[in-house]
Amino acid sequence: MRHRSLEICFTPAAFDAHADSEAVVVVIDVLRATSSICTAFANGVREIIPVATVEEAMEMKARGHLIAAERDGYVLDFADFGNSPFNFSVEKIKGKIVVYSTTNGTGIMKQASGNHDVVIGSYLNMTALCRWLEAQDRKVIIVCAGWKRRFSLEDAVCAGAMALSLLESGKFTTICDSVHAATDLWKAAREDLMGYIEKAAQRSRLRDKGLDDCIGYCHTFDVTDVIPVLRNERLVAL
Amino acid sequence: MRHRSLEICFTPAAFDAHADSEAVVVVIDVLRATSSICTAFANGVREIIPVATVEEAMEMKARGHLIAAERDGYVLDFADFGNSPFNFSVEKIKGKIVVYSTTNGTGIMKQASGNHDVVIGSYLNMTALCRWLEAQDRKVIIVCAGWKRRFSLEDAVCAGAMALSLLESGKFTTICDSVHAATDLWKAAREDLMGYIEKAAQRSRLRDKGLDDCIGYCHTFDVTDVIPVLRNERLVAL
Repeated sequence: MRHRSLEICFTPAAFDAHADSEAVVVVIDVLRATSSICTAFANGVREIIPVATVEEAMEMKARGHLIAAERDGYVLDFADFGNSPFNFSVEKIKGKIVVYSTTNGTGIMKQASGNHDVVIGSYLNMTALCRWLEAQDRKVIIVCAGWKRRFSLEDAVCAGAMALSLLESGKFTTICDSVHAATDLWKAAREDLMGYIEKAAQRSRLRDKGLDDCIGYCHTFDVTDVIPVLRNERLVAL
Repeated sequence: MRHRSLEICFTPAAFDAHADSEAVVVVIDVLRATSSICTAFANGVREIIPVATVEEAMEMKARGHLIAAERDGYVLDFADFGNSPFNFSVEKIKGKIVVYSTTNGTGIMKQASGNHDVVIGSYLNMTALCRWLEAQDRKVIIVCAGWKRRFSLEDAVCAGAMALSLLESGKFTTICDSVHAATDLWKAAREDLMGYIEKAAQRSRLRDKGLDDCIGYCHTFDVTDVIPVLRNERLVAL
């Protein structure tokens, strides 16, 4: 098998510079969208329909759908619940379809899905996802959801952990500077990951809102083997 | 004096997410545009007129201007010389006006100049620029020129060196994740800067074209005290 190329895109703002329809796109939004999606599939959700705008989420609510939606960490008033992975419990979502809209993560999923196969990555499904990516004969672009089109430290560090695992498999090569930077950030962070993530702006934002009970959980490796994938604009388990 | 905020923008693609007309914008393009501009002013150039497009550069050539212009490292055929700092020698440019167009650096200068005061940064003028920024009562946004709207390692590392110097002055604070990432990359790189920069894609691109004689020079601290600044769409020494 030939060596496949690996890239990281640190912000949706730069996605067009990386776009390549032959690649598999991995979307990472550690705090909290992709961690919550992995949790939902681990807990038996049937489908998740990501929508980019509040208006779309409201429209889906009017049609009777179960809605998970937040902006800037706050649950939208018409939604059934928000963006914490702890909301996506077996009791609430097993066997159901959930419509999902968040500040950053769902926007880039929609943006990338037009021309790419999109899968969902997080610490929670890291090893299962890496082994699956290694088994594909495809280029991989890891896209960090970031924060309002800016760079996010926690997403970059997670992307670095994933990139290092893929490179160490011997099946990928890279000439992408973001991969070198992200793997170096992961190496700086991994000895004390929770201490390192204290620096992240999103860590402070969630603490300020009392929403930081999930930070440790969202940085836990390999809670599940699920690989959520976008098919026809809906997330399903592979 | 109040603490001023410090941000880094890793790619021109994300500049709109950082833009703040109250801030001073520092443009960094280590290999090679901003290193060449600092060299030019150290060697007595009168003015540099950055232009974003090849067409504008051609038009200025037709009007009799001295032209420095490259794309992807190659000197454009109508230009008087290209983008190596060694082109901007006293003999060639002292007292003259030079029109300048490069792959990445001049585009972001033009983009930022609409609503911001723009200054030019590099290792070559690092200390002088940091001391000047510390003396202003202004927010600072360091913008990395990157490569075709992507993240560039050599610009991020230089931005990290500058950010660390500004933070250590005690006059700046930050809640910007890119600043934390860039300073950590600088800390990983600084013990063996030339070795670290071997990983950068632009390092390889310049080597492949035989244009890498300037790499060491472009990573030399404090060759000059000049602070090039954009005034009325022209770069002049402050």
